[in-house]
Amino acid sequence: MNPRFEFTIHATDGAARTGTIAMRRGAIRTPAFMPVGTAATVKAVKPADVRAAGADIILGNTYHLMLRPTAERVHRLGGLHGFMGWDRPILTDSGGYQVMSLSDLTKVTEEGVAFKSHLDGSRHMLSPERSMEIQRLLGSDIVMAFDELVPTTADRDRQAAAMERSMRWARRSREGFDAGGEHAENAALFGIQQGALDEGLRSASAEALTDIGFDGYAIGGLAVGEGQEAMFGVLDYAPDQLPAERPRYLMGVGKPDDIVGAVERGVDMFDCVLPTRSGRTGQAFTRAGPINIRNAKFGEDTGPLDPACPCPTCAGWSRAYIHHLVRAGEILGAMLMTEHNLWFYQRLMADLRTAIAQGGLKAFAHDFRALYHGR
Amino acid sequence: MNPRFEFTIHATDGAARTGTIAMRRGAIRTPAFMPVGTAATVKAVKPADVRAAGADIILGNTYHLMLRPTAERVHRLGGLHGFMGWDRPILTDSGGYQVMSLSDLTKVTEEGVAFKSHLDGSRHMLSPERSMEIQRLLGSDIVMAFDELVPTTADRDRQAAAMERSMRWARRSREGFDAGGEHAENAALFGIQQGALDEGLRSASAEALTDIGFDGYAIGGLAVGEGQEAMFGVLDYAPDQLPAERPRYLMGVGKPDDIVGAVERGVDMFDCVLPTRSGRTGQAFTRAGPINIRNAKFGEDTGPLDPACPCPTCAGWSRAYIHHLVRAGEILGAMLMTEHNLWFYQRLMADLRTAIAQGGLKAFAHDFRALYHGR
Repeated sequence: MNPRFEFTIHATDGAARTGTIAMRRGAIRTPAFMPVGTAATVKAVKPADVRAAGADIILGNTYHLMLRPTAERVHRLGGLHGFMGWDRPILTDSGGYQVMSLSDLTKVTEEGVAFKSHLDGSRHMLSPERSMEIQRLLGSDIVMAFDELVPTTADRDRQAAAMERSMRWARRSREGFDAGGEHAENAALFGIQQGALDEGLRSASAEALTDIGFDGYAIGGLAVGEGQEAMFGVLDYAPDQLPAERPRYLMGVGKPDDIVGAVERGVDMFDCVLPTRSGRTGQAFTRAGPINIRNAKFGEDTGPLDPACPCPTCAGWSRAYIHHLVRAGEILGAMLMTEHNLWFYQRLMADLRTAIAQGGLKAFAHDFRALYHGR
Repeated sequence: MNPRFEFTIHATDGAARTGTIAMRRGAIRTPAFMPVGTAATVKAVKPADVRAAGADIILGNTYHLMLRPTAERVHRLGGLHGFMGWDRPILTDSGGYQVMSLSDLTKVTEEGVAFKSHLDGSRHMLSPERSMEIQRLLGSDIVMAFDELVPTTADRDRQAAAMERSMRWARRSREGFDAGGEHAENAALFGIQQGALDEGLRSASAEALTDIGFDGYAIGGLAVGEGQEAMFGVLDYAPDQLPAERPRYLMGVGKPDDIVGAVERGVDMFDCVLPTRSGRTGQAFTRAGPINIRNAKFGEDTGPLDPACPCPTCAGWSRAYIHHLVRAGEILGAMLMTEHNLWFYQRLMADLRTAIAQGGLKAFAHDFRALYHGR
């Protein structure tokens, strides 16, 4: 029988690490990229094709699922895995981020967050305890602590207050998770470091989290518009503040070169809507940089989206065809583009793992950036 | 090497026949249902999955493709088969129906039809010669003659005039097709019987067409709102007016019970957007009748769309999950629903072929209707 949660580091290269997280539902190779399956589907791709692209784990969104079809319904139907047909690990977020960014927020108190649904205006609440309950009902494999987010542009006092409240909520999340019975025996819980762009706050947050103790640690509150330079500035110290023997997860990141830079700085896990969302808006990732397939110059281009890509889309269809589909608003365009982008991201992670294992990350990252940015 | 076009009838049962059309790009088992691939894609399904559902041939639309990406572009890119990744036979319509129903019609003369694009208002024309040229540029396997359509509600004089013009256009289509060089040596040409609901006009049309000579004969001008009873009324005599040794194709039909009734009356080929369009609007076909998966009663239904269906959708996902996807507007909902509906239609055709071969069509049709209509 597979272990509940066991992180093994196979090799390091500078601050970067490559390893494996062994879990009951399967292994997660790190650095790992988790495709986002917001509403119980990685948009426009069947689960088997998400797996074929190389994904070991996907992400589900507590906020969306609690509103539709509701966590209770998913639970009655046997949990998120059976519901959507994905039998490998699923990480669920806590709902904290979406409740701030998507809902009509009515009140934030020490107890939790009251809000109105963006779908129908109905009233709901989220708290550390309720978030843990929802993630348990969904049958999540990696549960995220419930935290409070404030913009990185807020002043230091507000950042400090939000971070401190998030740490109190992290303890309540730990307690709520641990009270989950059988689910707690099989799933893992991650804490989330806050503190915006302030090294002192980040340090205090890391200390509070490690004092509570989690299976893994997320770096939260980044990739919210601060820019790559500011983000890398935090990543120059934040991973080191977190326990080296635990996976580090940079939430909501990101662009391919964000990921490469974060891996160089010691991050092990990522999630982002970019490959899937871009797939529906006409942006295809290639090693030579992203292309907008709607561009007229691709109208008679008989080559694949990316000559270096072994994915089913690149094996089967031309840029000209996909250009036509996307221009015509055809669903198949979103399907083929999304599948390609998922392969691009997973191949990038595989190459990063190989480079770390071979001690060649610096050269790989240099070459990747030169080609990607056309220099 | 496969023949250009060879129709073999394996068995008959009453007026119904089952057989095979052998063509260069593969065999077509009849009675056959052709999924519609309007804009060079069967919407929301990859070609390999269209084939896996059992389709031997698909349909492409001259009107849509001539406007976007244009027949000339498809030709420069190597033809429709390579462009969309479907290597089996493709039937293309003549554009006659869509130019009447979709475009801003500017002028119909003996020469042809002038119209404005529904996409951008640009001016175009279609004539028998131009339609043949476009279908040749697309690389069509079964080319349809260009005809003029008038509503079944138009008076007899207008019907007669349109039918007679269509017969003159059929001759020009034959000549245009035959001038197509290598394409004409490899592809087939079908004539289209017109005459609305008038037996005399239908008879005159059939005579004119057989006098010209075609590889197959379509029954046109039906399934345009006249109702099943009126359509079956025409089908009680129209197939017999056409050569028995040639395939008969009922254009744009239809609902499952339309198809069963038409097969009983001697029709060999069908096309319709219903399985694909319904797949995008929440209607799933089952042997016990269509269901609207958006209906609240399916929200916690753990069964498959159709308990009798062996398709990938029914093997992998519940009504409850698809209900959720469709309600949430998820692309995967359209994908899973469309694939199921294609399987439903192809299984129906396979069962009809088997029933005819076994001399049991009457019993099959009776049982099918009883279950489908809940009687």
